[in-house]
Amino acid sequence: MTRERLYLYDTTLRDGQQTQGVQFSTAEKVTIATALDTLGVDYIEGGWPGANPTDSAFFDAAPTTRAKMTAFGMTKRNGMSAQNDDVLAAVMNAGTDTVCLVGKTHDFHVSAALGITLEENTDNIAKSIAHLVAQGREALFDAEHFFDGYRANPDYALTAIKAAYDAGARWIVLCDTNGGTMPAEVGRITGEVIAAGIPGDRLGIHTHNDTENAVACSLAAIDAGARQIQGTLNGLGERCGNANLTTLIPILLLKEPYISRFDTGIPLDSLANLTQISRALDEILNRVPTKQAAFVGSSAFAHKAGLHASAILKDPSTYEHIDPALVGNTRIIPMSNQAGQSNLRRRLESAGLTIAKGDPALGQILDEVKAREAEGYSYDTAQASFELLARKALGQMPDLFEVKRYRVTVERRKNKYDQMVSLSEAVVVVKVDGEKRLSVSESMDTEGCDRGPVNALSKALVKDLGQYSALLEDMHLVDFKVRITQGGTEAVTRVIIDSEDGQGRRWSTVGVSANIVDASFEALLDAIRWKLIRDRKG
Amino acid sequence: MTRERLYLYDTTLRDGQQTQGVQFSTAEKVTIATALDTLGVDYIEGGWPGANPTDSAFFDAAPTTRAKMTAFGMTKRNGMSAQNDDVLAAVMNAGTDTVCLVGKTHDFHVSAALGITLEENTDNIAKSIAHLVAQGREALFDAEHFFDGYRANPDYALTAIKAAYDAGARWIVLCDTNGGTMPAEVGRITGEVIAAGIPGDRLGIHTHNDTENAVACSLAAIDAGARQIQGTLNGLGERCGNANLTTLIPILLLKEPYISRFDTGIPLDSLANLTQISRALDEILNRVPTKQAAFVGSSAFAHKAGLHASAILKDPSTYEHIDPALVGNTRIIPMSNQAGQSNLRRRLESAGLTIAKGDPALGQILDEVKAREAEGYSYDTAQASFELLARKALGQMPDLFEVKRYRVTVERRKNKYDQMVSLSEAVVVVKVDGEKRLSVSESMDTEGCDRGPVNALSKALVKDLGQYSALLEDMHLVDFKVRITQGGTEAVTRVIIDSEDGQGRRWSTVGVSANIVDASFEALLDAIRWKLIRDRKG
Repeated sequence: MTRERLYLYDTTLRDGQQTQGVQFSTAEKVTIATALDTLGVDYIEGGWPGANPTDSAFFDAAPTTRAKMTAFGMTKRNGMSAQNDDVLAAVMNAGTDTVCLVGKTHDFHVSAALGITLEENTDNIAKSIAHLVAQGREALFDAEHFFDGYRANPDYALTAIKAAYDAGARWIVLCDTNGGTMPAEVGRITGEVIAAGIPGDRLGIHTHNDTENAVACSLAAIDAGARQIQGTLNGLGERCGNANLTTLIPILLLKEPYISRFDTGIPLDSLANLTQISRALDEILNRVPTKQAAFVGSSAFAHKAGLHASAILKDPSTYEHIDPALVGNTRIIPMSNQAGQSNLRRRLESAGLTIAKGDPALGQILDEVKAREAEGYSYDTAQASFELLARKALGQMPDLFEVKRYRVTVERRKNKYDQMVSLSEAVVVVKVDGEKRLSVSESMDTEGCDRGPVNALSKALVKDLGQYSALLEDMHLVDFKVRITQGGTEAVTRVIIDSEDGQGRRWSTVGVSANIVDASFEALLDAIRWKLIRDRKG
Repeated sequence: MTRERLYLYDTTLRDGQQTQGVQFSTAEKVTIATALDTLGVDYIEGGWPGANPTDSAFFDAAPTTRAKMTAFGMTKRNGMSAQNDDVLAAVMNAGTDTVCLVGKTHDFHVSAALGITLEENTDNIAKSIAHLVAQGREALFDAEHFFDGYRANPDYALTAIKAAYDAGARWIVLCDTNGGTMPAEVGRITGEVIAAGIPGDRLGIHTHNDTENAVACSLAAIDAGARQIQGTLNGLGERCGNANLTTLIPILLLKEPYISRFDTGIPLDSLANLTQISRALDEILNRVPTKQAAFVGSSAFAHKAGLHASAILKDPSTYEHIDPALVGNTRIIPMSNQAGQSNLRRRLESAGLTIAKGDPALGQILDEVKAREAEGYSYDTAQASFELLARKALGQMPDLFEVKRYRVTVERRKNKYDQMVSLSEAVVVVKVDGEKRLSVSESMDTEGCDRGPVNALSKALVKDLGQYSALLEDMHLVDFKVRITQGGTEAVTRVIIDSEDGQGRRWSTVGVSANIVDASFEALLDAIRWKLIRDRKG
């Protein structure tokens, strides 16, 4: 049996941006598009050009991708031609080969939201799609509220999508816009659409997770014959989110009947990047990754029940539906650090620290990591802090400098122009090369703006570090993330700092304290030490 | 058509406790059991008596419930009688009228995990269930790994469950223990079990969320004829969690075909408590509620897209699959640069600020929001800060107090025990009721731990706010989020603070500055002002 092609259409950058609290910058959109292309999706919906400045800027800056970069918009408005609709023109002007237009297919919305006749709406759809095709674009039609519309008025819902199909749309995407349709009904209606004359390999499915069924509804449509799935990474999206591609992709690649029936554009070895891509997206959004997320969550292969854990040690397939390594995730067995040690050795090696199998320092490092994680530290991303911790345990941590004390003051008051202004000042006392040195710095930047206490501390610290000051000149902070987390029974602050230097190296460090300045300073010290270990002489 | 009875079996207290990081106390179990009983589930699985001290203690302390309190355990071990198995005896001794025993139905597990013959396993199941029945208990059999077992050896899987059925089990619960079975296959296999002679009204379904399909798999089993659903509140459970009853209950009560076909033990008006019960459970577990959770999440009825928001104002059914009030949730129309005037008016109304359509203040507020978003502010979640911004523009911002200046110092040095310790101290100068007041506070908590500069500032600020200090006593910070974002051309710090008070109100505020202490202080001031506007007299 030859396998059929199933297409994946990602809308993280468009519908995903409808997530409450999410607002991508243009640079973040470029980063995400690149990750999606590495993964291997077929289409990347980049946004709605003209609807907001970020989306317009993204299409100007969009990376060259193997995936088809797609601009999103809506069908032309009533009473004007497709050529003269400036909203549609802005979409076309993004210059993508592929364009997706959303339009109404539910009679109630045509009258309630648009206030036009059903015939006018059908005509707007047909003319818009025809315009795309005439301009040589691959056209997609997002059939908004299709399932609700089909329930209410099946004849009109079919008339509307047939207008798009007849006008030359490559894909008719059946959207469950409000997310209220049950999987069985999605399957039944998709089957009826195919029976009504639109072939399954021209149908896409776009679902929302309002009943926790977005993945199941997508699968039901595929089972019924649709051949394109729309979704987002980590299930981002309006309200409860869109169908989660981070879940659907491993299902399609690892589960029957999909694995035998379909090819996607995603190679199996690309799947091993999935967990990392999912967590990197959370990192960009400064969201705490969902522990219980299917496939990629940190708990997804964590075995807590005693009976499960002991069986897993005999044979992982007893309590695991797939091998976690297939999606780049790892097994967690609280009662055994067996798996931990080989993981650890791999990690140490990637930091240039070789250590023999069975070395007792391995157990010591694992215990130290465990104790620190209980205090609120996290070494998932803070690889540089992890390396320093291991170096200490291995006796490979050079004695660089010691911070004896510091003091930082933030003061906010009115200046002589009666404006509220702030200023931070830091004093740091270090011992370096056997000598005690006091430095003071303030946080004002060249434009007279107060950059805050951590900036003042950072400047005071590197100002007079003897032989080391010169080595730190090309280092700067590129990101700073703060999270409240649990440290023992107390809420503590975890700070993760990303640093960069003139050689293009980028590294992450972590600090934890109930005091945000302390936590920042700890992460800063780790960042400096990591850099000095690499760059000092001898 | 008469409606069939569908039974809900909650295992939050047993399988839910397998969630990574979750460990209920006995008192918490009592609280949760009471909430479940108020909701109206049919069975409450309280734990495994004898397996751990908390579970044993719970059955001693268990509240009297309308729901059937159920003890969980496993079928008797090989080579001893049901009467003489001490593990089973501990389960029986909990004294519940209903007992659920898990047993193997997958041939591979019988040999790999138990190391006994298939016949011995079948016999253990039959004898265990017969023992329960002889003791006058209602017996449930949890058929572990049933779907995997049926795929591998359908004859044996059926033999195993028929043994339990023939021995008098009221319910045979088909478990997808590893969570890897697809919904369509769950439906097909459930149908085949019924065809093989076990009636649907004797079958339950127990699924896990490892492919994000636990809800869909439960529905597929019901569609095929099963009549009991096992699940947990908020989808707690081993690895990715169990089927989420917080989602399944509203589906069964509000969605076709379930609403017409089934009665559950849950009255429709009980459903309005669902959001509160879900959040109370998160509160007990000290977890941040999942914003995008179906039905009960704070984003579940949040409309961000401009086109959606304007249609919602005309008719909420345009972009909502159910009325949020049915599940005790609320609609949110957040501010963002995609929102227009109609969105804004709706949002002002929910804050108690009425404003006429076309009022020029609307445009002014939108401009202000836009300008602030360009500086790095975000009002998607920070509703309270948004309200204050609008009040200023509308001339409805009372003159509460004015901060004239502040100074905060963080000092870190060695104490007399040669340990590095830190201390923060804040001085705040405010003008309130025409009077200037100076307050000083430090950040030490009752356990001698330094809570940092923002804590010190917060304490100093509320310490002497005249008439207002008393109103702020029941207010505390529940979450604190920081991210670096773009403010104009500079990187700035955005702080979002979530506050809560004794009346159970929860509100979010935002502050932005290059200085993290400034940004935090700004968010803190907004939080206090929002609370005072609500609680002050007159």
